[in-house]
Amino acid sequence: MKRILVIHGPNLNLLGKREPEIYGSLTLEEINHMLKDAADKAAVAVDIFQSNHEGAIVDAIQAAMGSFGAIVINPGAYTHTSVAIRDAIAAVGVPTVEVHLSNIYKREEFRHHSYISGVAVGQIAGFGVDSYLLGLRAAIKLAKEEA
Amino acid sequence: MKRILVIHGPNLNLLGKREPEIYGSLTLEEINHMLKDAADKAAVAVDIFQSNHEGAIVDAIQAAMGSFGAIVINPGAYTHTSVAIRDAIAAVGVPTVEVHLSNIYKREEFRHHSYISGVAVGQIAGFGVDSYLLGLRAAIKLAKEEA
Amino acid sequence: MKRILVIHGPNLNLLGKREPEIYGSLTLEEINHMLKDAADKAAVAVDIFQSNHEGAIVDAIQAAMGSFGAIVINPGAYTHTSVAIRDAIAAVGVPTVEVHLSNIYKREEFRHHSYISGVAVGQIAGFGVDSYLLGLRAAIKLAKEEA
Amino acid sequence: MKRILVIHGPNLNLLGKREPEIYGSLTLEEINHMLKDAADKAAVAVDIFQSNHEGAIVDAIQAAMGSFGAIVINPGAYTHTSVAIRDAIAAVGVPTVEVHLSNIYKREEFRHHSYISGVAVGQIAGFGVDSYLLGLRAAIKLAKEEA
Amino acid sequence: MKRILVIHGPNLNLLGKREPEIYGSLTLEEINHMLKDAADKAAVAVDIFQSNHEGAIVDAIQAAMGSFGAIVINPGAYTHTSVAIRDAIAAVGVPTVEVHLSNIYKREEFRHHSYISGVAVGQIAGFGVDSYLLGLRAAIKLAKEEA
Amino acid sequence: MKRILVIHGPNLNLLGKREPEIYGSLTLEEINHMLKDAADKAAVAVDIFQSNHEGAIVDAIQAAMGSFGAIVINPGAYTHTSVAIRDAIAAVGVPTVEVHLSNIYKREEFRHHSYISGVAVGQIAGFGVDSYLLGLRAAIKLAKEEA
Amino acid sequence: MKRILVIHGPNLNLLGKREPEIYGSLTLEEINHMLKDAADKAAVAVDIFQSNHEGAIVDAIQAAMGSFGAIVINPGAYTHTSVAIRDAIAAVGVPTVEVHLSNIYKREEFRHHSYISGVAVGQIAGFGVDSYLLGLRAAIKLAKEEA
Amino acid sequence: MKRILVIHGPNLNLLGKREPEIYGSLTLEEINHMLKDAADKAAVAVDIFQSNHEGAIVDAIQAAMGSFGAIVINPGAYTHTSVAIRDAIAAVGVPTVEVHLSNIYKREEFRHHSYISGVAVGQIAGFGVDSYLLGLRAAIKLAKEEA
Amino acid sequence: MKRILVIHGPNLNLLGKREPEIYGSLTLEEINHMLKDAADKAAVAVDIFQSNHEGAIVDAIQAAMGSFGAIVINPGAYTHTSVAIRDAIAAVGVPTVEVHLSNIYKREEFRHHSYISGVAVGQIAGFGVDSYLLGLRAAIKLAKEEA
Amino acid sequence: MKRILVIHGPNLNLLGKREPEIYGSLTLEEINHMLKDAADKAAVAVDIFQSNHEGAIVDAIQAAMGSFGAIVINPGAYTHTSVAIRDAIAAVGVPTVEVHLSNIYKREEFRHHSYISGVAVGQIAGFGVDSYLLGLRAAIKLAKEEA
Amino acid sequence: MKRILVIHGPNLNLLGKREPEIYGSLTLEEINHMLKDAADKAAVAVDIFQSNHEGAIVDAIQAAMGSFGAIVINPGAYTHTSVAIRDAIAAVGVPTVEVHLSNIYKREEFRHHSYISGVAVGQIAGFGVDSYLLGLRAAIKLAKEEA
Amino acid sequence: MKRILVIHGPNLNLLGKREPEIYGSLTLEEINHMLKDAADKAAVAVDIFQSNHEGAIVDAIQAAMGSFGAIVINPGAYTHTSVAIRDAIAAVGVPTVEVHLSNIYKREEFRHHSYISGVAVGQIAGFGVDSYLLGLRAAIKLAKEEA
Repeated sequence: MKRILVIHGPNLNLLGKREPEIYGSLTLEEINHMLKDAADKAAVAVDIFQSNHEGAIVDAIQAAMGSFGAIVINPGAYTHTSVAIRDAIAAVGVPTVEVHLSNIYKREEFRHHSYISGVAVGQIAGFGVDSYLLGLRAAIKLAKEEA
Repeated sequence: MKRILVIHGPNLNLLGKREPEIYGSLTLEEINHMLKDAADKAAVAVDIFQSNHEGAIVDAIQAAMGSFGAIVINPGAYTHTSVAIRDAIAAVGVPTVEVHLSNIYKREEFRHHSYISGVAVGQIAGFGVDSYLLGLRAAIKLAKEEA
Repeated sequence: MKRILVIHGPNLNLLGKREPEIYGSLTLEEINHMLKDAADKAAVAVDIFQSNHEGAIVDAIQAAMGSFGAIVINPGAYTHTSVAIRDAIAAVGVPTVEVHLSNIYKREEFRHHSYISGVAVGQIAGFGVDSYLLGLRAAIKLAKEEA
Repeated sequence: MKRILVIHGPNLNLLGKREPEIYGSLTLEEINHMLKDAADKAAVAVDIFQSNHEGAIVDAIQAAMGSFGAIVINPGAYTHTSVAIRDAIAAVGVPTVEVHLSNIYKREEFRHHSYISGVAVGQIAGFGVDSYLLGLRAAIKLAKEEA
Repeated sequence: MKRILVIHGPNLNLLGKREPEIYGSLTLEEINHMLKDAADKAAVAVDIFQSNHEGAIVDAIQAAMGSFGAIVINPGAYTHTSVAIRDAIAAVGVPTVEVHLSNIYKREEFRHHSYISGVAVGQIAGFGVDSYLLGLRAAIKLAKEEA
Repeated sequence: MKRILVIHGPNLNLLGKREPEIYGSLTLEEINHMLKDAADKAAVAVDIFQSNHEGAIVDAIQAAMGSFGAIVINPGAYTHTSVAIRDAIAAVGVPTVEVHLSNIYKREEFRHHSYISGVAVGQIAGFGVDSYLLGLRAAIKLAKEEA
Repeated sequence: MKRILVIHGPNLNLLGKREPEIYGSLTLEEINHMLKDAADKAAVAVDIFQSNHEGAIVDAIQAAMGSFGAIVINPGAYTHTSVAIRDAIAAVGVPTVEVHLSNIYKREEFRHHSYISGVAVGQIAGFGVDSYLLGLRAAIKLAKEEA
Repeated sequence: MKRILVIHGPNLNLLGKREPEIYGSLTLEEINHMLKDAADKAAVAVDIFQSNHEGAIVDAIQAAMGSFGAIVINPGAYTHTSVAIRDAIAAVGVPTVEVHLSNIYKREEFRHHSYISGVAVGQIAGFGVDSYLLGLRAAIKLAKEEA
Repeated sequence: MKRILVIHGPNLNLLGKREPEIYGSLTLEEINHMLKDAADKAAVAVDIFQSNHEGAIVDAIQAAMGSFGAIVINPGAYTHTSVAIRDAIAAVGVPTVEVHLSNIYKREEFRHHSYISGVAVGQIAGFGVDSYLLGLRAAIKLAKEEA
Repeated sequence: MKRILVIHGPNLNLLGKREPEIYGSLTLEEINHMLKDAADKAAVAVDIFQSNHEGAIVDAIQAAMGSFGAIVINPGAYTHTSVAIRDAIAAVGVPTVEVHLSNIYKREEFRHHSYISGVAVGQIAGFGVDSYLLGLRAAIKLAKEEA
Repeated sequence: MKRILVIHGPNLNLLGKREPEIYGSLTLEEINHMLKDAADKAAVAVDIFQSNHEGAIVDAIQAAMGSFGAIVINPGAYTHTSVAIRDAIAAVGVPTVEVHLSNIYKREEFRHHSYISGVAVGQIAGFGVDSYLLGLRAAIKLAKEEA
Repeated sequence: MKRILVIHGPNLNLLGKREPEIYGSLTLEEINHMLKDAADKAAVAVDIFQSNHEGAIVDAIQAAMGSFGAIVINPGAYTHTSVAIRDAIAAVGVPTVEVHLSNIYKREEFRHHSYISGVAVGQIAGFGVDSYLLGLRAAIKLAKEEA
């Protein structure tokens, strides 16, 4: 079966140490552990990637073409500024689920617009770590439909 | 255990008969059946309500106060025009999950803004009937945290 | 032959009593009489519905699916605020003619935008009761093409 | 002497139970009691109506034509979204006072615009229940001038 | 009896040869023939003018003053850019009906605004050649009221 | 008991002589007389100040700190342009009632925005001299709550 | 001495016959007569040109290069829509005075912007025929400075 | 015969010393001298007032009511920010000519909008000191028509 | 082989005489000579047309239908204001290359938008006369693909 | 050596008494004392001026011409509304440093725009009293370069 | 002779594999081959660089300073979001040609704005691989003028 | 004592070689030398980092957490486009001073907005290298308060 790629965008490596009232107190390692557990239970493989570099995320999405059945991406700050990541997702044709820990519509005006939403299959936001877990579940289903 | 209220907004009673390329070919009855199945498996009770009337949806949300642990709402067209539904959700204090069948960010500009997002816990959009099923799962968890 | 549904939106029941310098001095009853006369001459049946309730207008449009060949709608104030009526028209697939008594482009800025225009076949505005009579004529032709 | 109609818009039936830091801790029943007391002292009759339905509020305004000397309306959420209520007020020609419990200019951007202000005689906002009592006082004076 | 002037704006001379999915497959000659037939049946005279030149259309409208009872104009592209044609219509005081073959509200954003609507009596759009025929009918009535 | 300060902004000294169709025919002296009468009846002292100078109004508001229990201000033209008056009201912490003779929402677009509303307790507009009298009544109550 | 070119834009040939409450009751012939008289008194020659055609006005401005000392232009409707006339004025380098009969800032929003102002030496508006006479006076002075 | 009031706004007392490439090299005293000369020739009296204070300009305009036949005002920076001066001009009913030394449409975007234009009779801009002299000429004519 | 039509918009006949710092010092005759030379070398025929009249340019584009393989157009000022030229290009279906001498994105804001870009195959701007020569080269290739 | 002028805008005389969470708890007197100390250490003279009057600040800036080497200004509320102060700074040609106690970009939207920034040498904001001290240091350096 | 640097922005390494209906079916290798061939024919050297990293493109542009005579850049997604690339181009002073495979004006609104256009010599868009070939030709000419 | 981190954004490595009329003629090495001198005098340690890569700057800010007492950042072009850098500053909780060599408010419109200002303590702009030196001084004080 095809694998799922999980991409964490910029500053998500600080999770747990950073503004817990917005992002929760779990560290990225703990979230990754929960994602791997959930993937194990669903009998799918999951690869996890984090970077603060827009270009590195573009590289990672390009590399997913052919070998991954779906992508779960939390683009972090690049949600609002990156056309390059948008174009990469559109180009590789791997079904992509956009997730956000926080409800971006309760935050600053500039966080209400996502360049990614227009090319993702769907969007899940506001449920903390559960955004990732629900997103993984959606991605697994998309990967199966794809296959 | 507290119940979950599922609210379908205007024109969702036409599902399956209406623009299947946007909304899919399942009827509302089939979706409701799937929601009840999923609720049964999770051992929670689910009540389902559909209306084309903004005021009736406000009434239903108000009535949920005290007796429901969470709300899953697909506000349909009222997503973009109803401050009254927004205020009702804010007033009753029942944690609410906003769901959409289609990815509203791929559609007309006026569908990109939601009055509900600012008061919902989170938002799930673009996964067809799975938006509801993922939303139910999120709502069950919220209802438990609440309890 | 299929019937034509005429829908009058909010406050049109006050016609003749209300701001005659904008809307003319004919009452809604007189207009309905003229519409029935014109329909008789064209040998088509016409049903007429008025409501101040957005939801009730959505219900009426949904009910037209299958049994009406065309709709003539003066959405009144809901022209500018109702996505729900727009979605209902798009959903039922009955060809729809949007009419307005007054020239909405000579009035307040917020009346220049119509949510209905994007899903109606066409729009007739500014001719007083003749907007309805011309709209009925257009609707009859659309119903015939449909048939 | 002609009567005064007081209209409470959507969610105002939750007053006292709902976000007291914004709307105060008085229930709608208590406010209505205070309004009746004040009307008694001024020797005028007051009718009170609450609804969560835009269409029902339009119906109520239309019904006021001829039998009420003035209207005091707190349109709640419909302040910002209802052209239908605006048109009803303009149509019936009964002098209308717009009131708000909270200072809407200290709240979200979308609450700064009122469709009602352009057709009301005047506006009173920010004084809690006193907005209603001052509004009643203004309405009584308008009803007398009208008479 | 006074005559009706029909004005076709720029590129309408290409009708039938040009983007038939938007404008239909009738040529301008066929439309003009239909207009003359309809005018004959209504026992009014109709003059028809087409130009790609904004200034020539202004000249034609000015020349209508005094000798025409009404104007039917499809301003084509000049709908969205010509204040000069707007001013000419306002200046000559001949009642004018604005018509469009296509529903301009389903097309590019810049076609949603008309400089002509603010000075025309009314507007008919979206019915193909029937927009002209309904417009002629409206114009004949206006010419009679004028007379 | 603490005193109430009434501030009249620019050009209000021309009342009665100036555009009576907008501002009414009472002079400022007559309005001040009515305010003093009403204050007497309520057994509170009222000080009245008028200036055409933004800076002088700022000075007056600053001087109110400590010695006045509430302010009633009609900022006139400075409503729409003065951040300095806004800041003065916020700084002195004296509860302030914003009043307008006319309904500013029926006038030019630039009069729809008030810099004062965001720092005033509430706003009363559109009732002519009664805006002042209702505002005084509101201010007296605020001064008592403050005390 | 160099000549002055006066250009009248579209619909100005209707002056006196057209909306006299906006444009006054003098005919274009009378205005031209007054301009020639004033030029005679100042001992300068004046050429006068009117057209409803944007291109013809561009041609006329181009032809002025070298043989005219200054231009007085009332661009009429083209004030608000013509970049071509703007570019012609910038290209020929003849000092140009923009005049308007009416105060364009008291009229529709779209008349508040002039493409010509950015390339004219100055602008005179709102004085009826005196706008032309003052403009001629300004142009004569500019032509002398130029010479 | 009635007098003409000339008002110079803020910073115009620095003329000649200040940015001569924008405002020219004449001092305000020299301009005033030229205005008095021109007034003498036209046999009218002229009063001249300069202030950097918005409120003082409002006071001066108010004082002109009754004793001046027309006002020539260069509102300087207050052109773009003062509703108080606008209201004063509208209130006193003295016909007012707005003048500017520079062509404000060739400068920063924020200088393109004038609060004064909507209440002045007309506007003259861009001719340096000649803006004043032409404005005086226009004002004299207006004062005579008034008389 | 099919011919290429080169269209020069308004004021381009002044090239070389007009603002050389923006448009260069070559005259239109010299540019046309270079275009003919280049066409000769590529063994294609080139027709050249210049007009200051929007309508004449529309006429010329319409006349190209059937007899020209491609169009090179520098729409000059009409780039920013002409929907009629846009519609003509869309209507005739001749592949069109939009060229500009100057880099329009370094100039006034209103020159950044082109009505032509949306219907042209592509756009070349900023290279002076080379914009034309590169555009001709592109057009020749398009004409061959078309053939 | 030339002196430095420090200007405090409106409401800064309330410092220490006013919203200390935004502006800090130091009084203006204490800040002035610190500024004089710092000036003494740098062996420059400092003059300090505070006013709530826009016109008085304009007067003060004008008076600085010739006798001061640099200005440090905290324009307070006039930062966002005063073109007159901007023009005064541009006119006198004394290098000017704009300072703000608070970080204006963390506050209301309308405080994000400064009319002064475009004519000041630079801007220092957000460091409380240190904004003044750093500003003085910058001003001293500018005064020396000037000298 | 100096060399030409060709820079391909993000996702262009996927050319041929990615959305061929927008970008064509040639791979980047094939395009690079065509560019080298064309450079050979023109007897110039060409260096080619591709990166998905904004910073790496900035580095490459900086490195071009001194050793390259011109740059041809297709900034891809960074066209619309990168001020850093814009600043790099402005800083190094190497004449730069901006190219795009697709006509960006026929695509999403956010692709209509380019941060690069304001600092490039010119722009070529919409001709597929020919955009590069025409761009190379333009760059060679610029490099020669530079030399 | 804790160290100060100085971050130079993209293209600042070109200082001295790049547009000296905007950025001055000092090289980055010279500026760094001056910063180190100033730090030595204040007895604090300073680390200096420059990168053209947004992601690398995010990495550097994250690495500052815990070991640096304050950050001085000149984000260069990323000021206007990087939410990632903004989020990093907010996340690490190290007090940050934003500096700019030039007065960004005198430059292109898009440089007037900073994503960094909302999370920095304060902002210093327009003083050339002195912006850095003043910024260092502010940072040292913040680091001490922090400690």
